[in-house]
Amino acid sequence: MRATDIIEKKRDGDELTTEEIRWFVTGYTRDEIPDYQAAAWLMAVYLRGMSRRETLDLTTAMAESGDQLDLSPVIDYAVDKHSTGGVGDKVSLVVLPLVAAAGVPVAKMSGRGLGFSGGTLDKLESIAGYRVQLSEDEIMQQVRAHGIVLCGQTRQLAPADAKIYALRDVTGTVPSLPLIASSIMSKKLAAGANAIVLDVKVGMGAFMQRVEDARVLAQIMVDIGAGAGREMVALISDMNQPLGHAVGNALEVREAINMLRGDGPADLRDHCLAVGGHMLRLGRRDTGSRALEDAMAELEALMDSGEGFYKFREMVQSQGGNVAMVDDPGKLPRAGLMGEVPAAEGGYVTQINALLVAQAALELGAGRAQKTDPVDPAVGVVVHRKVGDQVAVGDIMFTIHANDEHSLGRARERLARAPVFRSREPEPMPMFYDTITASVGG
Amino acid sequence: MRATDIIEKKRDGDELTTEEIRWFVTGYTRDEIPDYQAAAWLMAVYLRGMSRRETLDLTTAMAESGDQLDLSPVIDYAVDKHSTGGVGDKVSLVVLPLVAAAGVPVAKMSGRGLGFSGGTLDKLESIAGYRVQLSEDEIMQQVRAHGIVLCGQTRQLAPADAKIYALRDVTGTVPSLPLIASSIMSKKLAAGANAIVLDVKVGMGAFMQRVEDARVLAQIMVDIGAGAGREMVALISDMNQPLGHAVGNALEVREAINMLRGDGPADLRDHCLAVGGHMLRLGRRDTGSRALEDAMAELEALMDSGEGFYKFREMVQSQGGNVAMVDDPGKLPRAGLMGEVPAAEGGYVTQINALLVAQAALELGAGRAQKTDPVDPAVGVVVHRKVGDQVAVGDIMFTIHANDEHSLGRARERLARAPVFRSREPEPMPMFYDTITASVGG
Repeated sequence: MRATDIIEKKRDGDELTTEEIRWFVTGYTRDEIPDYQAAAWLMAVYLRGMSRRETLDLTTAMAESGDQLDLSPVIDYAVDKHSTGGVGDKVSLVVLPLVAAAGVPVAKMSGRGLGFSGGTLDKLESIAGYRVQLSEDEIMQQVRAHGIVLCGQTRQLAPADAKIYALRDVTGTVPSLPLIASSIMSKKLAAGANAIVLDVKVGMGAFMQRVEDARVLAQIMVDIGAGAGREMVALISDMNQPLGHAVGNALEVREAINMLRGDGPADLRDHCLAVGGHMLRLGRRDTGSRALEDAMAELEALMDSGEGFYKFREMVQSQGGNVAMVDDPGKLPRAGLMGEVPAAEGGYVTQINALLVAQAALELGAGRAQKTDPVDPAVGVVVHRKVGDQVAVGDIMFTIHANDEHSLGRARERLARAPVFRSREPEPMPMFYDTITASVGG
Repeated sequence: MRATDIIEKKRDGDELTTEEIRWFVTGYTRDEIPDYQAAAWLMAVYLRGMSRRETLDLTTAMAESGDQLDLSPVIDYAVDKHSTGGVGDKVSLVVLPLVAAAGVPVAKMSGRGLGFSGGTLDKLESIAGYRVQLSEDEIMQQVRAHGIVLCGQTRQLAPADAKIYALRDVTGTVPSLPLIASSIMSKKLAAGANAIVLDVKVGMGAFMQRVEDARVLAQIMVDIGAGAGREMVALISDMNQPLGHAVGNALEVREAINMLRGDGPADLRDHCLAVGGHMLRLGRRDTGSRALEDAMAELEALMDSGEGFYKFREMVQSQGGNVAMVDDPGKLPRAGLMGEVPAAEGGYVTQINALLVAQAALELGAGRAQKTDPVDPAVGVVVHRKVGDQVAVGDIMFTIHANDEHSLGRARERLARAPVFRSREPEPMPMFYDTITASVGG
């Protein structure tokens, strides 16, 4: 095969064969195909699109480009989750302990944050001593002993994805649905899950702004998973306002701990129960008509009884974390400066712009603008009022946790612009827009 | 400016500004923009196209990327020609001496052949001693003394084109009209012509297969030239069958010499008079209603009187070539083996597939498959019968001039497939399909 033939075929809108896609991805991963040919091909893919089969073939080729994890020695049927990234998204921290507490073992490999949304690993590292880098043996041992592990990637999962993503970033080929879907799903497939729950965010604080776009992306990913023999569910969830109240690493860990003790915001609770309910149902391969409701009720009971909390505590302890910080979240890293942002108007809150909140948190140091930036675990924003709340002028809308005056001032400016007030009560904001499962024939 | 912004803008189908195009071309020429970004951009240009203004801006930026020739010290108003490449296209060898003999000085820089069509320089080099590499001073001196020079490129004309062309070749972005047009025209603009006659070939032996495509390409190039202040004419000419009889370097030189002595095939004669007529008319800035006919008649007289031949001989002598070979073309390099291909059927010739003839010549060694291949001046094909001729079974259709048995055998196989015979006399094949001048507002 010749790279130019494959580029020209895609350029002309023709469907590539499984072999052609595999040859191209393998050749690029091995540095046998140069960046400039891959760049031309990516632009052709961007503008011509890919069929469902091509997208599955691309994902599979990327998933098989490096090591693949085999969890079967410790988990009969592995369930995983993935969020496309949201502001204040601490759902993994709450859901995984709950599902594990329900008896379905979970082994999740998370990433670090880039851009506005912090990564789960960054959040966990605000607990002193928590080890995110485990060996494969340690992962197996954790699952066997505790039924839960939450850590960073081991080995080289889907190296093709890392290479292609870096090239997309500098060639204007990032926002392509088949390329986004294959990037996410190749890592999930390589990580060894049998069933995957996708949390596809849509709104001001998400990559996708329109529900219709998120639905298309979700369907593509669900079809990829189904095509690769995985059980798939994707939730399309709102990311116009932050999820819960806390945005920032230690602040989110604290909120997650409180939530696991049954004391958290209603939106976060409902979100976690929905995601966790699907995971539990899939993990148990329960196809009954009431499977989801039953699973959600069970998880809620585990939340209220504190069993989810104890599973989280057990996980932290077994991964070397300081449980004193779990028992008393007041001991988590704290910022030196606090600032409040009052409501400039009275009325009903009709919008809390999640993007502005995320940008404020990023500037405070809670996230990374570049891969090599350090994160500050202590800083962030607490959102006191959410969409639908009624406020009076001067009511505190946000508390800023900062470690320097300059970023505090900048965050204050941004956050002052985040809320919108109206005199009439708004329609309640939906939490989920849709639930996507495999399409017919998928 | 950022390269990714410019890539994304073109990707999304938006029109780039003059400044953006210039910045991108300049940055790429200076190695400040990497190949992979240029490759993604070229694919976006390929699939999204370019407006007339963008194409002109691209061409101008490429033309200004290196040195630009100023012929004004020796030619008041310079006229140039360019052929998009045909099989048996020795028109420059005939036309330039004729135009020079008519008193309009010509300074043409030609290229070497790549692919099926041999380059004018390769053809001239079959005359022993002919120097194609002249200094700029020598070029000026030649024009001053003889009114004609036919040589290779001096200095770095349009280096952006060389770099972009090499990248297009390996990224599936060659057959794009704005990219083809800008590649051709950037070199023409940099070479200092005030008026340009384009010979755009269409048919089996040409890059373009359909008249409509050739017309579009011609119009784009004419508009670029007009936009850059040049007088432009483009002829859309047939390249379904080879032009004249000879295909191969020395064979074509011999045919050109014979033509300049008034003894050549009718199609070549008519073709040369048309191209030359436009050049002469433009060079004299003669806008009279009979300017073209008058110019053609004048050139025909110069052909029949031998004045064109003497101008050619003068050029060869002044550029170091062995005039004995001009006076007696039998002294030009000759191949060691001859082979004949008889007609397998009788009837009227309705087709001589120019592509097959070109491939046969290429395999014999008359052209280059790769830039670094040497060419054999002696080998080639003589086409004895043309479309419309009546033949009997066994009549000789082609004579093959080879230097080894293997390529002779392969050429024989190819050429056996080149003609198509029918019992009914075909419609005469048109020589020119159209004449394109600047569009309104161009």
